[in-house]
Amino acid sequence: ASDDKAYSFSVGLLAQEDIGGFVGSGPKPGETKGNFNNLTENARRLRLYFTWRYKDWVANVTPDFGSSSVDGTVGLFEANLNYTGFNHTTLTVGYFQPRGDEESAERSGAFEFLERPTIVDLVRNIAGGVARFSIGGEHYEDRWLVAGYFTGQKFGDRSKDTTITDSQTGGVLRVAGRPYVSKDIDLYVGGSATTAFKVNESSKGRQYTFSDNTEIPLGETSLLSSGALTDVAQIWAAGPELALRWRRFLLKGQYYHVGVQRDHSGTDPLPSLGFDGWYVAANYTLFGKPRGYNSKIAAFTTPGVEKDFDPAHNHWGALELSGRWSVTDLDDVPNQGGTGINGNQQTAWEAGLNWYPNRHIRFMLDYERFIISRSTGGSNKAINVLGRDGNAVVGRIQASF
Amino acid sequence: ASDDKAYSFSVGLLAQEDIGGFVGSGPKPGETKGNFNNLTENARRLRLYFTWRYKDWVANVTPDFGSSSVDGTVGLFEANLNYTGFNHTTLTVGYFQPRGDEESAERSGAFEFLERPTIVDLVRNIAGGVARFSIGGEHYEDRWLVAGYFTGQKFGDRSKDTTITDSQTGGVLRVAGRPYVSKDIDLYVGGSATTAFKVNESSKGRQYTFSDNTEIPLGETSLLSSGALTDVAQIWAAGPELALRWRRFLLKGQYYHVGVQRDHSGTDPLPSLGFDGWYVAANYTLFGKPRGYNSKIAAFTTPGVEKDFDPAHNHWGALELSGRWSVTDLDDVPNQGGTGINGNQQTAWEAGLNWYPNRHIRFMLDYERFIISRSTGGSNKAINVLGRDGNAVVGRIQASF
Amino acid sequence: ASDDKAYSFSVGLLAQEDIGGFVGSGPKPGETKGNFNNLTENARRLRLYFTWRYKDWVANVTPDFGSSSVDGTVGLFEANLNYTGFNHTTLTVGYFQPRGDEESAERSGAFEFLERPTIVDLVRNIAGGVARFSIGGEHYEDRWLVAGYFTGQKFGDRSKDTTITDSQTGGVLRVAGRPYVSKDIDLYVGGSATTAFKVNESSKGRQYTFSDNTEIPLGETSLLSSGALTDVAQIWAAGPELALRWRRFLLKGQYYHVGVQRDHSGTDPLPSLGFDGWYVAANYTLFGKPRGYNSKIAAFTTPGVEKDFDPAHNHWGALELSGRWSVTDLDDVPNQGGTGINGNQQTAWEAGLNWYPNRHIRFMLDYERFIISRSTGGSNKAINVLGRDGNAVVGRIQASF
Repeated sequence: ASDDKAYSFSVGLLAQEDIGGFVGSGPKPGETKGNFNNLTENARRLRLYFTWRYKDWVANVTPDFGSSSVDGTVGLFEANLNYTGFNHTTLTVGYFQPRGDEESAERSGAFEFLERPTIVDLVRNIAGGVARFSIGGEHYEDRWLVAGYFTGQKFGDRSKDTTITDSQTGGVLRVAGRPYVSKDIDLYVGGSATTAFKVNESSKGRQYTFSDNTEIPLGETSLLSSGALTDVAQIWAAGPELALRWRRFLLKGQYYHVGVQRDHSGTDPLPSLGFDGWYVAANYTLFGKPRGYNSKIAAFTTPGVEKDFDPAHNHWGALELSGRWSVTDLDDVPNQGGTGINGNQQTAWEAGLNWYPNRHIRFMLDYERFIISRSTGGSNKAINVLGRDGNAVVGRIQASF
Repeated sequence: ASDDKAYSFSVGLLAQEDIGGFVGSGPKPGETKGNFNNLTENARRLRLYFTWRYKDWVANVTPDFGSSSVDGTVGLFEANLNYTGFNHTTLTVGYFQPRGDEESAERSGAFEFLERPTIVDLVRNIAGGVARFSIGGEHYEDRWLVAGYFTGQKFGDRSKDTTITDSQTGGVLRVAGRPYVSKDIDLYVGGSATTAFKVNESSKGRQYTFSDNTEIPLGETSLLSSGALTDVAQIWAAGPELALRWRRFLLKGQYYHVGVQRDHSGTDPLPSLGFDGWYVAANYTLFGKPRGYNSKIAAFTTPGVEKDFDPAHNHWGALELSGRWSVTDLDDVPNQGGTGINGNQQTAWEAGLNWYPNRHIRFMLDYERFIISRSTGGSNKAINVLGRDGNAVVGRIQASF
Repeated sequence: ASDDKAYSFSVGLLAQEDIGGFVGSGPKPGETKGNFNNLTENARRLRLYFTWRYKDWVANVTPDFGSSSVDGTVGLFEANLNYTGFNHTTLTVGYFQPRGDEESAERSGAFEFLERPTIVDLVRNIAGGVARFSIGGEHYEDRWLVAGYFTGQKFGDRSKDTTITDSQTGGVLRVAGRPYVSKDIDLYVGGSATTAFKVNESSKGRQYTFSDNTEIPLGETSLLSSGALTDVAQIWAAGPELALRWRRFLLKGQYYHVGVQRDHSGTDPLPSLGFDGWYVAANYTLFGKPRGYNSKIAAFTTPGVEKDFDPAHNHWGALELSGRWSVTDLDDVPNQGGTGINGNQQTAWEAGLNWYPNRHIRFMLDYERFIISRSTGGSNKAINVLGRDGNAVVGRIQASF
């Protein structure tokens, strides 16, 4: 920061590296193996946060050397310009991650588990997600927050697919409230809506596929898929969320409905489709300061460390235990109304332990059991003829500055 | 900077993000569509300038997360070592952008328009351009500047084309003078020459293609092309430039002739070719401090903001209005003397408005009308059977620190 | 660093750019040309070292914009978390370069030559090398050092080859001692062992190829190769090293034996293979402070500059002269026990001159003569039918901060 406070510059870090693997993940007879590594490693996030401020203007550029599946590529988390001249308000333009719900508003260094629930990841990537071109803003008060963004393409969309001749437009809306607050209790209520007015038009037309791995970021084959949905006119999603903190205990849950409208201009128009997903997560802070509510982002944040880890003085940092049930159903009508594809369903049970020796370091250990229904069409058909289930155990090392 | 002034370290930023699209850009009957997006976004420059200095030695490394067409890749703007121990002189070795004319010497955060005129871009990329390996120097005085560089390959040339077995060598020369200066008037005269003594030899031999988009960086199909010129022995370009500032008004213009010598060893030698291009640009600063001449780089720079934007105190920053006419003719003899290709011609009319709320932030809005003659051969033939014209409207958000 | 010393943050640089080429490198009659450029350039290392420290915890992230062959890609040198709370000990987890011998422990800005000897590069990449996921530590005392790491995949392994379904595991061990020390003499003795318990399993099975260029980083064709070894069960390497400093003179040498165990489950099991390599290097510091021993890394480091280069005051920095003989033999039984491949042998004679005008800048000039025996199989067969030899002259510009 400069002496007159007009200027500041900072460099921050979020480093997350994962090691773990899959046990008992098949294949069943007649299925091909799929990529379920017994023991492997992945750089999940290696973000360098560069921030320049001049008076009310803030520029952020954040390269990311990590990957949500297999590391080795370099990308961008965000690059945007912000105006903070209005009270409790941030106006943003540029590549950004518009926050549509509590799980997106939590910073990725603060998650209870390695990954967000699948349904949240699928919905946020419709018109939001990492490095989405956004124009909009967020306003918060102590008891509520509202955010809205007009959005375009993601950074790199058109270099990954050079046949895109018409780019996506969309929007993300969030309202969040905190109707009851006391020393021991935080009640949180939220509502989210997002839409892609149109999706990218490439040489394959306006096609969209919902697909995700099993909430484990080790590059495994994505078994869950809606199939490649063709002639997509519009996609939208909306849903409520609820959270309750009672002393050291935090309960969260969210439901999303996803609607896919098709282009009805053809002679044999494809039907509209509806998908659903939800999660319920419970968290208990065994020692350390429990997860608390941050009004500025309308989200619960990471446990606090009161005294840094120091066994000689009986200081142990913070430790929290979490459990989650997450269901995503991408199956609607048979063959999704067309031919050659289908959708399927995924259920994930997850348990996790997070230890914070101090405010900058975190070690995570997650166990997951997943169950995925079979695929009768599409690219992952051969890997998932009979439905698959399995287990994963993954540890994460995290440093944030 | 260290207390004894021997050391300094800094991190700078140039962030430019564009949003806009094309209107009425065809295709005409019989042409394929081409990539003329109605509304899309692009990260044009996301440069992080890292600079270390120890006494007279300066090391620069500047990653760039932006792209001149479709974002999503990560590259390098520069990485070089400089010696500044001689008065008014910088000696440079390493990946650099050798400045061959006024439009190249202007920093890319200071342009009147989104992009340089096409002819300037084509000429500077012969043996200069971004991240060109260069050995040379620049010397300036109050009234003149001279710069010369021996140059090699560009960063990444040999990873983009792994069949290169003989790398390019070339050179860039610039002389610039300021014959008349008064309070109201700056007269600028410059001369530029560049050559590729030999171009990269790949599995296709020594081949070179001049091609450019329509001075709009949104990833559209490049309609202007010389065709792929084979058996290239040497390429050179030279031309004069002139600029005149009168009070708040700035007029600039430049002409380039490009010569392509062929390898005459074949039984049916290909002819030498000559191409031409020029531009004329006019600029008026409506309010704020007008564009001024910077002797150190021999170029006109961005308008200055006297009081930061603050409507309550009737401060509005700076605003400038620009217009430009730019013509590039890459057509010489029929079929460029061979078979299967031809060259064509592009004319671009452009108008732009730039607003500077303070010294770090800029908002640009450009309108362009382009007219391109037809292609009878080469890769863009199907897109441009009849000649194409169209319009583009693009805005840019810029932050520089 | 913060006032209470709990925090520190720094950004360091290692920039190395090379210019040079090959002379008299063939091809002989009947051979295809290969990529032996007469004059080209390469960004060898462009590393930005970001380091955050909080008390005993240190996080490092180091992007690298350089390349060991042809520049243009962006990668990662390291990204790890370290605990330094035990005396003279560093515990490390994450992407790291585990140091297995003196040549690996020398920082890459301190090498006597442009590149390490080929056998050292081949051995360190078995289970170590740049950006290898590592869990382990290093402990040093004034007279000895011991280091050990369990290792996994390299950053990017699974994005370069997306068919990997079982990731590599391995280990690196180093012991180093300094049995005799006096003002004029440093005697160094070391021992190294490394192993890949299993190598990556891809669609080609568990296959491994030893291959290297001629200790010159200009993207030339790798003539030395073991051939693609199939059914690899385990790879190990071990060997002693010795170094002696006498006043301004430093002599170093190392021998490695490499063993390749095959999977013996087939009906016609492939034989185990053994390869060898060694180098001897001599170095003399003509002026400046000679290379000295650094106990913390158990390696000899770069000459010191007592007075910065300043001809007016007769200060010339430091200058050192080096020579090296390096032999690598990757040929064992005919066809390596299989069909369609063979191994060959490389000898490299190298001479180098390094000038340090000050502690941050270095200019290198290397001359090399290489002799490589013929390939009768594998992908480089056509380029090396008769055995090849040649010469290379390369200069390097280096800045380190």
